[in-house]
Order: sequence, then C-alpha cells, then structure tokens
Amino acid sequence: MVNPILLPELREMIRNNQKAELTSFCTTLHPATAAEFMEGLTVEESWSTLSHAPIQRQAEIFEFFPLSKQIVMTSGVENARMARLLEAMSPDERVDLLERVEGEIVESLLPLVAQAERTDIIRLLSFPPESAGSVMTTEYASLTETLTAEKALTALRNQAPHRETIYYIYVLDSERHLRGVVSLAELVVASKTSSVSEIMTRDVISVRVEEDQEVVARKLARYDFIAIPVVDDIGKLVGIVTHDDIIDVVIEEADEDVMQLGGVLPFEEGYLQTPLFTFARKRGIWLVILFIATMITAVALKEYEQEFEQIPWLVLFIPLILSCGGNSGSQSATLIIRALAVGNITMTDWWRIAWREAAVGLILGTSLGCMSYFLAGSLSYWADGFFVVPISLLLMVVTGTLLGSLLPLGFMRLGWDPAITSTPFVASMIDITGIVLYFSIVRFFLSDSMTY
Amino acid sequence: MVNPILLPELREMIRNNQKAELTSFCTTLHPATAAEFMEGLTVEESWSTLSHAPIQRQAEIFEFFPLSKQIVMTSGVENARMARLLEAMSPDERVDLLERVEGEIVESLLPLVAQAERTDIIRLLSFPPESAGSVMTTEYASLTETLTAEKALTALRNQAPHRETIYYIYVLDSERHLRGVVSLAELVVASKTSSVSEIMTRDVISVRVEEDQEVVARKLARYDFIAIPVVDDIGKLVGIVTHDDIIDVVIEEADEDVMQLGGVLPFEEGYLQTPLFTFARKRGIWLVILFIATMITAVALKEYEQEFEQIPWLVLFIPLILSCGGNSGSQSATLIIRALAVGNITMTDWWRIAWREAAVGLILGTSLGCMSYFLAGSLSYWADGFFVVPISLLLMVVTGTLLGSLLPLGFMRLGWDPAITSTPFVASMIDITGIVLYFSIVRFFLSDSMTY
Repeated sequence: MVNPILLPELREMIRNNQKAELTSFCTTLHPATAAEFMEGLTVEESWSTLSHAPIQRQAEIFEFFPLSKQIVMTSGVENARMARLLEAMSPDERVDLLERVEGEIVESLLPLVAQAERTDIIRLLSFPPESAGSVMTTEYASLTETLTAEKALTALRNQAPHRETIYYIYVLDSERHLRGVVSLAELVVASKTSSVSEIMTRDVISVRVEEDQEVVARKLARYDFIAIPVVDDIGKLVGIVTHDDIIDVVIEEADEDVMQLGGVLPFEEGYLQTPLFTFARKRGIWLVILFIATMITAVALKEYEQEFEQIPWLVLFIPLILSCGGNSGSQSATLIIRALAVGNITMTDWWRIAWREAAVGLILGTSLGCMSYFLAGSLSYWADGFFVVPISLLLMVVTGTLLGSLLPLGFMRLGWDPAITSTPFVASMIDITGIVLYFSIVRFFLSDSMTY
Repeated sequence: MVNPILLPELREMIRNNQKAELTSFCTTLHPATAAEFMEGLTVEESWSTLSHAPIQRQAEIFEFFPLSKQIVMTSGVENARMARLLEAMSPDERVDLLERVEGEIVESLLPLVAQAERTDIIRLLSFPPESAGSVMTTEYASLTETLTAEKALTALRNQAPHRETIYYIYVLDSERHLRGVVSLAELVVASKTSSVSEIMTRDVISVRVEEDQEVVARKLARYDFIAIPVVDDIGKLVGIVTHDDIIDVVIEEADEDVMQLGGVLPFEEGYLQTPLFTFARKRGIWLVILFIATMITAVALKEYEQEFEQIPWLVLFIPLILSCGGNSGSQSATLIIRALAVGNITMTDWWRIAWREAAVGLILGTSLGCMSYFLAGSLSYWADGFFVVPISLLLMVVTGTLLGSLLPLGFMRLGWDPAITSTPFVASMIDITGIVLYFSIVRFFLSDSMTY
C-alpha cells in the first residue's frame, strides 16, 4: 500500500537532493519499513534513494521490496551497479530474484559479479524450483568441534556480520560433513573451557538438498527450529533454510492450495497488481475446460427430453439435485486435498476414506432427502412419483462425497497434483453424473406412467 | 502416524519395566521425535513412559503430542501429577491445552498448581482466543539498559533455562516499559564494556495484547523476526510471540480459509481422527443451509414452467448456464477471500474490485458465449431463438464474477468473516439468480413465439 503522507515528503527530499535526510531515512528505519514507505516511487526514484545508503543497507532494503518491483528495478539500472547489489544480497534472496528475471539480463549481469558470489549463484540456480536447495542460503555459521566455548564465541564474532543467522552453529569436520549442531544460547550458557564437541547435539535433524520445500517446511515447523541444515548425498552441509523463508513457503503453498481449489491458476502478484488480461487468462483456462465438460450435461439431458416433456415438474428439481451433489462433493474434495497437503492422510488410506465418505454421504443424503419430502409437501409441489426426488438426492449426495474424495486421490495416483481437482471441476463431474442418475431413477420408477 | 517398528518395541520396554531404556528413550531423542514414536500408545502407557524422564523433559515431550492426545491424557491421570506437568510446561502451550479441556477439570487442577504458574495461567486464559495475548508466552528474557554487554551475558546465563528464547532480549525500565531490544548475536559481537543502551534498538516493533493473531503473524513474517514483543495499553511488556507459534498460526488460518471456502466448518482433529458424527454435523450444517437456499431454485423454475413446457430445449442448457456462473463466481470468491486474508486488498478497494471483476466477466463471458454458439452448432442443437443461450451465458458469467467478489466484501462490511461466503454458498446464490436471469431473457426475446 502506498503511504499517502510519507510518499510526497520522500519525493520532495529526492527532488531537492537532501542527502543527509535520505541517508537517515535509509539507515534508521527497519529495512522492511523503509521498503514499505518507498512503495509508489518510480524505479529511478527508488535507486536514487537507495544510493544514499551503504551497499549492505541497500541490499537489505531491496530484499524487502515485492519481487515484482525487484524485477523492474533490476533492468532499470546500469548492470555494474546491480552487480554490486547482488553481491551484497543474501544468497537465497538473490537467487529468487535471478530465477525470475529474463535470461539475457542474468547473462549480462553475472560476468560483472565477483567470482565467489557468481559461483554461489550458479550453484543455487541449478537446484530445481521449490526444492530445499532453491530456498536455502549458503551463509551459515560453522565451527570445528575441537574449539572451546570461549574460542567458539570469538570465532563467531568474526563470522557474524556475514551470516544469515548465528543462532544455530553447525559443527563440521575438515571435509564439511555435518557432525553436530550447537545453539548460540548453549554456547553462551556453557562454561568457557568446555569444548564444542561436549556441548553439541550429534543427532542433527536435517533435510536433503533435493527435498521438496513443503517437506522442509513441515519438518522445521514440527521441531520448532529457527533453521534447518541442508545436506547433500554424502552428508556434507550445503546450506540452511531459515524460519522466515519457511513462513513464506507456508503462505505460498496455502495460497496455491486455495487458488487451485477455487479453480484459478496461481499467480505471483497481488490481486490488484495482476494485469487484467493475465488475470482473465489464468481464470479462463479452467473456465473453458469446465465449460466443455459441462456441455456434456446438455448432451445428457437431450437423452431424457421425453421424460421431462411428459413430466414437466421433473425440471424443477434439476438444479436442486445437482447443487446438493456439487456442494457435498466440494466439501469432500476440500477436506481430502487439504488433508493430503498437510500430510494428514496418504493414498494408502483410500479405502478408509471411501468408507468414511460413503457413510457421511448416507447420513447427509438421508437427511436432505427427508427434508425435501417435507419441504416439497409444504410448498405443495407434491406430484405423483415425487418420491424419485428424495431418492435421487440421497444417491446424489453419496455420489458427491465419493467423487469428491476419490477424484483427488485418483489424480494423485496418476502422479498429478491432487489440487487440480478444483471444487469447480468436481462440481462439473457431479453435474454430468447427476443428470444421468436423476433421470435413470425417473425411468426406473416412472416409466409405467409414460408413453413412448 | 503410528510407527510400526518402534511401537511394539516400546510396548515391550514398558511391559518389562526397562527403566534405563525408557529413560534413554525419553532423554536422548528430540522431544518431537519421542512424541511421534509414542503415537499409538494408550494413555496409561504414555504416562508410564514419561515417568522415566525428569519433569522438564516430560513437559517438552508432552507439548509435542497432538492437542487431542494432550486432552485425553490430562483427564487420564491423578490431578497432582498433571499439576506438576503443567508447572513445567511453557506458558503458551499449557494455556492452549487448558482452553480446550473441560471447565471442571481445569477447576480441579488449578488449585494444585503452584501460585506463580497459577496466576500466569489465569491471566493468559483471560485473553480472547486468537488474540496476541492468547498465543504469547510470558517466558521472555529481559535486561536493564545500564548493564555492560559482559554483565548482560552473565545475567542471561541465569535466565536462559527458563526462557522460551534468549535470542532477543527485551530491555525494560523499572516499571517494565519496553525501552528497546537487543539480540543475543549483537550482545556476543559487541565489545564487553559497551552498555546495553548503546547496542540496543530503541525503535521496537511490537504488537498489542488484544490484536488478532493474524495481524501478529503478518507483522512477524514481514520483519523476519524470531519473536515479537507484546505490550499492553501503556507500553508495558507482557509477553512475546515466537516464530514457531506463528508458523502454527499461519497453517491454522490457511486451513480455516480452505475449509470455509469449501463450505465445511473447521475442526481441530485430523481428517481420519474426527469422529464420524462430528464430521457429518460440521458438514451438514452448511449443506442444510444451502439446501434450503437452493430449494428457491425450484420455486423460481415453477414460475417459468410455461416457458420450458412450450420450448423444451431450453431445459438442456439450464445446468450449463448455472455452472458457468457458479464456476466464475467460485473463482472470484476464492480470489477475494484469499486477497482479504493476506491483506492484499481492503474493503475500500471495492469499486476497483467490482470494475476488475466486471471486466474479467465480460471477457470470459463473451468467450464462453461464442463457444456455446459454435459448440451448439456442431452438436446440431440449433433451434429458433438459440441466441438466448450465449446472451444468458455472458450475463451469467458477469453476474457470477460480481456476486462472487462483492458477497465476501458485503459480509465483511457487516462485520462477518468474509470466508463464510464459501464457494458453495456463492454457487447457490448464483443458481437462483441464474434461473431468473435465463428465463427473463427467454421471456424478453421469445415471448412472441409462445402462447399464454
């Protein structure tokens, strides 16, 4: 959100080139606050504001800009200047950025970045997106186990300014194998002469570099860690993932789940920031797929034209029956997709799930069936053969719960993301099934009273 | 998940009362791992396993049990024993538990808890659920500003064992007003003789005790903090909320969003753990409400019986038109509810939202309308007056996007949670509107060809 009071003031400072004020703006506020106040500035204004701070501070503020702004700013300045900023940024943040800017810009920037940082960037870029490797940072604090607590603290004093966190210090052997972990709190509390190997925890909980970020998030959350170490195939420490990045992962994954459930392809910008046509496209793809699927309802209904021409009141209950099935199916799909996402159920539970859903469907379907009977009565919608409506409702709700729960599981079995069974998708499948079901029941019970 | 290999082994140890092994099980594993391995044990077995560890360790393991297990265990043991455990638990965890066990159990337990802890529990219980006060812990590390860095570290050594985190140390005056904050890293790195007041950050970012946990989560996530201080009306420090609790809050809130969007009341247990009838009830409430709402579609359709009796092909497209509106409405509702939840839009944006949604609706509705025209042609569903279908589709999609986006905003305006506009709810509203819309268009264009 643009700050209506501070923004004009900031612009004024830039126009008048008030160096002292701009330096103080950049250095005294929390970088997150400074970044927020700078929303609304143009690319040029942003760069000229940043230029009043030391490069380290510039990087800190820059990292708090939304990714979309970072991308625009990257291509809106001389490459040499951007290269200095990249060197100062934290490894995970700069890789997040470089993954999203255009390839040619990366290619023209990289040669200008100092050797050590360039190697680091290229290595991190090589990990698949959404893996532990792609969210980790390589700026961790490490020690060898022979140091005393006092010496360890001295060593940390030197490492501290360049590390993302020094609250967990990883104990490595000469080949960087992860031997243990010690927290800063433990070091501070320990007697000065005790050795790191005495204080450290040897049984280190870690993740492997290729693991999915969701697995990393779940593990870090379960153990309440501030950071979790990332190791390669042979147990060498290659980086750490910190709590703040995990919160972002959790929010991102929840967003994805919600969007997919709602039948929208996920997008990176905010609601109001996404260009209108991107927006229409991300929604249109699903809508068109569902439209084509739902056309089948028209084909199916055509099969039963005779029935509803002869018994027109049957039409009255088509939307009711479909929507009851759709609603119960949406509920089931939501529950299953979320339970799969948080690791609460696995595919092997499928028969327990089917049983539960069938049971819930029976309970709910019977209730709705009975309600329809009485409501129809009180609305004087009674007609000969009305009983087909409660029966259809019951079967429809059971069908809904089963389809809603088993479709996501089936998709998972096929190796697809279960969340692509959005609730609109489930609803469309149920619509088609519902029409066939309703009119099959009608045919079964009412064919005697019809003329063919 | 029950561990199939370790569980029988653990049971064996309990049966044979292998004290040394059980003590080692409790004390060498990470408490989270121990808690996980103990899943599947009965209440009695769990208590007898725990009894082999010192009370502090018992509490650490206990806190990692799922809340449902904690609740059962609380009532499955003598009150005196449970009271000792409560004293050892961290303040926020024990209050989470006590908020959920039955009132009479709390009343019989509290008198047995030591005075200091009892006072703390009663105070924390007094904060409204989901407020900063209800998720905070009172075990924070604090210092006065006149200490030197070296003295501060010595003071921390004494506080450390009783604090949830000593990575941020809050600087308080004699009346516990929050004056500043200093990180353990800063203290370690600083020269021994510099005073806390020189090192500390004075501009402390904090939350107020009555603020919603979602606001707290957003703030902590934005600033990448490990903990955030909670202050009362006059700026006195009353507690801290730590990063691990915030990850839980984020997951919980995302769950709530997803469930409500799917039209299910949120529940605390896992999918397979929730009793079948609780489950049916939580889903049934919404389903019944929606059922009654959707009955209106039957009433509405009855109004138009003449139309579809005379032009039966109109019926074929009822499900298609309703589901296109429903799908686009679900998309809009999902987008808006999530954008509201993550603070991306506010209610004051309503006209920009309405404009965007109308525009997207026009684009998508026109596309689907054109598609229906050609698809119907190729399926030879042409009929006189078929053009009412594309027109209805267009208007339906626009109605869907507008209802889907404005209903959540309207509910928010009324002070309700916008997420109660679940996608099934939106779909039901759209069903009713859709029928009226479709047949009004039919009446408008086709009344000439009908006999009344």
